[in-house]
Amino acid sequence: MKNIISDPMHVINVGLARFTDSLSSQGVPVAACPWQPPAGGDPVLAWKLARLLNNPEVDKANEIAFSRYMESNPVLEGVGTAGKDIPGMDGKRILHSGPPIAWENMCGPQQGAVMGAILFEGWADTPEAARRMVEAGEVELAPCHHHQAVGPMAGVISPSMPVWMVRDAVHGNRTFSNFNEGLGKVLRFGAFGKDVLDRLHWMADVLAPVLQKAVEKMEPLEIKSLMAQALHMGDEVHNRNAAATSMFFRKLAPAALQTGMDPAQVAAALNFIAGNDHFFLNLSMASCKTMMNAAAGVKNSSMVTVMARNGVQFGVRISAFPDQWFVADAPMVDGLFFPGYSKNDAAADLGDSAITETAGVGGFAMAAAPAITQFVGGTVADAVKNSRNMQRITVGRNAAFTLPLLDFGGSAAGIDCRKVADTGIQPIINTGIAHKEAGIGQIGAGLTAAPLECFTQAIDALDASLHE
Amino acid sequence: MKNIISDPMHVINVGLARFTDSLSSQGVPVAACPWQPPAGGDPVLAWKLARLLNNPEVDKANEIAFSRYMESNPVLEGVGTAGKDIPGMDGKRILHSGPPIAWENMCGPQQGAVMGAILFEGWADTPEAARRMVEAGEVELAPCHHHQAVGPMAGVISPSMPVWMVRDAVHGNRTFSNFNEGLGKVLRFGAFGKDVLDRLHWMADVLAPVLQKAVEKMEPLEIKSLMAQALHMGDEVHNRNAAATSMFFRKLAPAALQTGMDPAQVAAALNFIAGNDHFFLNLSMASCKTMMNAAAGVKNSSMVTVMARNGVQFGVRISAFPDQWFVADAPMVDGLFFPGYSKNDAAADLGDSAITETAGVGGFAMAAAPAITQFVGGTVADAVKNSRNMQRITVGRNAAFTLPLLDFGGSAAGIDCRKVADTGIQPIINTGIAHKEAGIGQIGAGLTAAPLECFTQAIDALDASLHE
Repeated sequence: MKNIISDPMHVINVGLARFTDSLSSQGVPVAACPWQPPAGGDPVLAWKLARLLNNPEVDKANEIAFSRYMESNPVLEGVGTAGKDIPGMDGKRILHSGPPIAWENMCGPQQGAVMGAILFEGWADTPEAARRMVEAGEVELAPCHHHQAVGPMAGVISPSMPVWMVRDAVHGNRTFSNFNEGLGKVLRFGAFGKDVLDRLHWMADVLAPVLQKAVEKMEPLEIKSLMAQALHMGDEVHNRNAAATSMFFRKLAPAALQTGMDPAQVAAALNFIAGNDHFFLNLSMASCKTMMNAAAGVKNSSMVTVMARNGVQFGVRISAFPDQWFVADAPMVDGLFFPGYSKNDAAADLGDSAITETAGVGGFAMAAAPAITQFVGGTVADAVKNSRNMQRITVGRNAAFTLPLLDFGGSAAGIDCRKVADTGIQPIINTGIAHKEAGIGQIGAGLTAAPLECFTQAIDALDASLHE
Repeated sequence: MKNIISDPMHVINVGLARFTDSLSSQGVPVAACPWQPPAGGDPVLAWKLARLLNNPEVDKANEIAFSRYMESNPVLEGVGTAGKDIPGMDGKRILHSGPPIAWENMCGPQQGAVMGAILFEGWADTPEAARRMVEAGEVELAPCHHHQAVGPMAGVISPSMPVWMVRDAVHGNRTFSNFNEGLGKVLRFGAFGKDVLDRLHWMADVLAPVLQKAVEKMEPLEIKSLMAQALHMGDEVHNRNAAATSMFFRKLAPAALQTGMDPAQVAAALNFIAGNDHFFLNLSMASCKTMMNAAAGVKNSSMVTVMARNGVQFGVRISAFPDQWFVADAPMVDGLFFPGYSKNDAAADLGDSAITETAGVGGFAMAAAPAITQFVGGTVADAVKNSRNMQRITVGRNAAFTLPLLDFGGSAAGIDCRKVADTGIQPIINTGIAHKEAGIGQIGAGLTAAPLECFTQAIDALDASLHE
């Protein structure tokens, strides 16, 4: 035994940094071990977590949910029309991103996009008339997620819009997403001018038929494999889709030429896709939704199956309660702004695209996309650290999504709301930043994190269902 | 002052590891500093190097050569025909990779490719007749590099073959490369069966016209920028060109559709390119040749402008002596072999593709392509280490070719033969491995290194021209 008075000491300090500092200022060698009380020090939550973290039924349920997620095999089924193919898409219904929200509470870009969709559908002739229609309750608003759909940013999908249809070849569930319009003034950022509406009509009338017929000519496209390749090519398939779009285009173009359609129409369609690095994003999102749908509805599972934002609220769903939202205020995004814009211009976190992080890519796979650090801020080391850090709050790692910078280890996947609440580590999201006013568009990109409250609410609900 | 008998010591050992070992085995804290005598301990070479490394004329010449290399802007000019567009490509002339070599000394794959080219040209009807023609001296053999051309592996280019034409928009020089045939049984691995010849005819008759007209419809393609993007997408644009090919295809396909050519022909051409991840390699090589040509011919410059192999000899040229080859035996390639093959089946290092390393990409940019470590062996850390190590033997770093894993620092570029001879660090080359017999094809991929002898010969020549 050492004599702690006379012998030289080597100290390991657990927790508060102040003890470390005072010892090392006195020349005592000291190693700091970071520690903080579980559940942020909340005794009631800590107690619930202790019960849930030691509950083998939750572990077993998560294993089932995770293996369903892993088995899921999203295949590009084709192109449909929202009103015809999305279940429950009846009447004058418009879908939007994030958890449910009333018209009057919607953020600027989402209100603008809803008005644009009404004009696109021809339900009204002027923006004012469109606004009055919604205010009069003549248009039904519903989250995309209530219809197995996902949409980036405002996430607005109306009945006449063409949609990607993705089917899980293993579990059979079908998911949907709209088409990516490109950058600049576009509906998903709330723009509804003539150019925006003209483009939407062109996408429905010219682009969609080409894509539909081309997909019929293609070999069945297993999207997870394409995403996995893109993760080796600098994409994280949320904020960066340059490689995935290029590879998808390489498969699509030869098929489009086999359709026998008017060459000018085919050329116009291919030109549009070739000019948009983000074109694959919506397919990535629909595929992530497919994988998470496979994991949804497992009794007692604390695995997160949805994270989505409407620019006002951030909503989370977990596998055990597939129809319930756990919501909190949507956070602001910390990132780099395009010249002339700042944080003051930004809308809060917006869009269904956080389904990518829910599925273990996007911010969870930042290490795959070092080049994106130049776009969202931070260093390559930060990107690797973020990807490693996420491993502390997930059920497992996705062996199909390997990250070269983690020595080809799988990306962290299957967020466990118990671990988030226990460690206080918030799921990281790598996202675009919208201007808070309708129609101005993207003003930057950066990182944000899912609010802890969503996960603690989920813990309350899970604890109540299991132990009360 | 410490008393070295009684006081505790901390030792730094420079050089031989044995001293480090004996001290640390006695419990003395010791830091090892690697050091070895310059020029591998050769006193004559060391003396020449001392003179050359301290010669400001060489430094100044290298600055000029390096800045010409950096300024160079290779632009895709179009598609030509070797016999018509390559200067000096007259009569029955066939180009091959590497330094000059007589027919009887050629390796199997290169002999096979020459015979294949004779059959393709219709100069002979059977492989035996083709062989007799060459043996009778009726066919002129010359290195691609003597005609501003480059070709991967056997590197065979004959008069009727279509070629890429790349022009330096700054310095005006024009370079050439053949088209990539894909994998499997192909001419560049020495195959000359009917399928190989049929494909070559199809490439000349169907593919080339589509590419030629499509390039006319495209915006002028600045290839360096495309290469730089690919370096952020997991390519090192030598052994891996998946991203570059995809991005090139995205630009090419819409242009091909505007040519007004027969849609079936356009579709066949695009299908061929879409199916070959390596299609961009030959454009990468021609562009690297453009950049290195810009740097060639600067009096007193020790910067390497060519590294090329013919499967028997490895040849190097430096800027000061643009028409002189410094040759040594071609090394074997250390790598991973496809199932059923081993080192015993391998040809020695082969092809002009080391022009990519000469230009600061390929093995010099391994850190850009962590995924390739799975293909050539080694770890991501090795790839980063190799890219850093190459900085010790180059004139500078290419600020246009930034590598995410080096925190977006430029790739090491402009090999200085003085530094290679001084440090003994050999330029690393990331390459495919050919079967030693004609026509079997690629049997693996891996890393090799340029032989030191080539660089010490260049030192002798440079020292002689400056100091004698």
